[in-house]
Amino acid sequence: MLTIGFNAKQASSLIAKANAATKNKALMALARLLREHVEPLQADNARDLERARAAGLAEPMVDRLKLTPAAIETCAQGCEQLAAMPDIIGEIVGMKQVPSGIRVGQMRVPIGVFGMIYESRPNVTIEAASLSIKSGNACILRGGSEAIESNKALAKLVRKALVEVGLPENAVQLVPTTDRDAVGQLITMSQFVDVIIPRGGKGLIERISAEATMPVIKHLDGNCHTYVDDPCDLDLALKVTDNAKTQKYSPCNATESLLVARGVAGDFLPRIGAVFAAKGVEMRGCPDSLRLLATVAPATLLKEATEADWSEEYLAPVISVKVVAGVDEAIAHINQYSSHHTDAILTNDHRHAQQFLREVDSASVMVNTSTRFADGFEYGLGAEIGISTDKFHARGPVGVEGLTSLKYIVLGEGEVRG
Amino acid sequence: MLTIGFNAKQASSLIAKANAATKNKALMALARLLREHVEPLQADNARDLERARAAGLAEPMVDRLKLTPAAIETCAQGCEQLAAMPDIIGEIVGMKQVPSGIRVGQMRVPIGVFGMIYESRPNVTIEAASLSIKSGNACILRGGSEAIESNKALAKLVRKALVEVGLPENAVQLVPTTDRDAVGQLITMSQFVDVIIPRGGKGLIERISAEATMPVIKHLDGNCHTYVDDPCDLDLALKVTDNAKTQKYSPCNATESLLVARGVAGDFLPRIGAVFAAKGVEMRGCPDSLRLLATVAPATLLKEATEADWSEEYLAPVISVKVVAGVDEAIAHINQYSSHHTDAILTNDHRHAQQFLREVDSASVMVNTSTRFADGFEYGLGAEIGISTDKFHARGPVGVEGLTSLKYIVLGEGEVRG
Repeated sequence: MLTIGFNAKQASSLIAKANAATKNKALMALARLLREHVEPLQADNARDLERARAAGLAEPMVDRLKLTPAAIETCAQGCEQLAAMPDIIGEIVGMKQVPSGIRVGQMRVPIGVFGMIYESRPNVTIEAASLSIKSGNACILRGGSEAIESNKALAKLVRKALVEVGLPENAVQLVPTTDRDAVGQLITMSQFVDVIIPRGGKGLIERISAEATMPVIKHLDGNCHTYVDDPCDLDLALKVTDNAKTQKYSPCNATESLLVARGVAGDFLPRIGAVFAAKGVEMRGCPDSLRLLATVAPATLLKEATEADWSEEYLAPVISVKVVAGVDEAIAHINQYSSHHTDAILTNDHRHAQQFLREVDSASVMVNTSTRFADGFEYGLGAEIGISTDKFHARGPVGVEGLTSLKYIVLGEGEVRG
Repeated sequence: MLTIGFNAKQASSLIAKANAATKNKALMALARLLREHVEPLQADNARDLERARAAGLAEPMVDRLKLTPAAIETCAQGCEQLAAMPDIIGEIVGMKQVPSGIRVGQMRVPIGVFGMIYESRPNVTIEAASLSIKSGNACILRGGSEAIESNKALAKLVRKALVEVGLPENAVQLVPTTDRDAVGQLITMSQFVDVIIPRGGKGLIERISAEATMPVIKHLDGNCHTYVDDPCDLDLALKVTDNAKTQKYSPCNATESLLVARGVAGDFLPRIGAVFAAKGVEMRGCPDSLRLLATVAPATLLKEATEADWSEEYLAPVISVKVVAGVDEAIAHINQYSSHHTDAILTNDHRHAQQFLREVDSASVMVNTSTRFADGFEYGLGAEIGISTDKFHARGPVGVEGLTSLKYIVLGEGEVRG
């Protein structure tokens, strides 16, 4: 691992200097290589799938491991999209002259080396590698043992693309072992690694945050709220709340908790309750909401919410529901129970919208739209390496910019300090 | 400590909402209160000074504890300057419409609660408190035991100013005890404290970084370099190098290492050597530089540099000197030995200047000016809470902006994810 770290550090100073055209050429080469290797990639992937099935992995988990031709094409298109984006490395911001006569600004530069620890889905290997190349960083990738053959095959193509354009192949390294000690070493070699990005279950992320000796860009839970305000457009609220909860149940930006202003609850809850009931979504409500929902939903889908429900990330067809007095109570409830990922207000009141935007302390705060939009692609970042629920450095979806830092640059003409 | 943490968290949500006018009024009130209390502040300060002298503290250390009328006036002026600066809280950046129709941007918000741990100089209490108010954060201040009476008196005025304008007094709390356990508690209560900012000796900062459970904005050493390039204006280089090293020896942004391109070393080193010799600055050189310096400096001021010298932060009339082949070797040497604080090139070559700016991996990179300018006031930040040698979040001098984060805000009109 120390050799991998040393090699990454060496490669990072070379790729940091690479110009935009060279980095983009590497991304285009990678897209081409992915398309040229659909069959061999699937052969390597088949070995992972076989091993997973032999180990008795559940079929949905096996599905997440699959490198289908469509998945490979999506990876290739992602590389091309990143290549087409402007390069932000070297960008200079805020340059101004100060009273002493010196000019002071900031230049955007790569962070250096990042370590990525992730589970199952092998396409993350390509997402991380391509973002690393675009942002001028070196990276060390540590994928899950269940995808080791697929990850090795993908990393080999990445390194081939780097060499093809004259960039150091060690700018992207995959830890070739599934040995658990490797993670422990990776997260403590701060002489080589500037930041760690874990993607996976809450347990993994908590352990890595606690033990890493360098900064961690982490994403814990997504307990997202949709608050239906009074006054609001109830047709809009119905459409958006339905989408936020039921378009997909497993993503971190799906709504897990619905708050409804008392003034509209009598009209709104029976309507959304009927939608949820038709889709088999279990509703865990406060007494007031249960009373209104009982008119449209079968008793089997209704439960009294416990205190724990307000903090729960279900990732399933379950939603907690609470009637609140208005925007103040909604904001207070969200700031207490939210995981600070994404929260939305649906309202027609300008002041309520502004107050919600200002006061809700979450990475993404939304007005009149679905929490499901909290995503690097949807935000126009081109790609995302993860979603940060921290306030430090990067917050919300993290794209190329989150993998850079701003250093001060100062231009003088012989000024000295008096 | 838990009560202090809980109170800070409560106060933080109130001061985060405060408008610019109210925060500025608090700063103006604090400036007035400081001026009205020069005499009682000096009386409290006298008790610290007495105790320090009785404990046998060296006179330069006692000096750093002094709250002279001039020092108090400087604090008051600092508050007024901060009040006069624009408020960046609530500023919205990068708002743009993306293909789904939603508009996505980022809003600048306070981080929440920061903890500041510092030694000796009591004026840091006012600097930290005023930056905290301006940035809409709450803070918990833990000053050194040697300044406890002065810090208590200053914190009392800060809280009086907050109450006067209707802000919560707990937005600024001083830990009232000098008990060492308090620090251990402060840096582990991440449920209340979002970031820790230590200011003090390297030992203190390393211990806090290792033990804190929340992010740390830290400043380790300042091993700053000045590189005299070929070609350059030698008169400019003489003036700037002299200033960078000798204007003051103790600041972290003083130059500790001088690199000189071989092509100009024969002309430049005897000239700067004579200046250093006249000021009693010891020169620890490579063999080539010693040969040139020996023509102008007494043998008592010349020493052969050891490997350790290239990494040393002297904070004293000592400088290491090395002749290098040119800009490539200078950059490589700096990236190996610098503490990534501040490094400068003095050059007439445009390409060398650009290469140095791009490739030197330090928080501040300068062309044709003195490393002594690396400072929040000199950069126009209004005030500084510290200088970060980290790459993560804030880098270089940290002012109001370093105490904020950007959250995403999303405005829709009923869009849903497809």
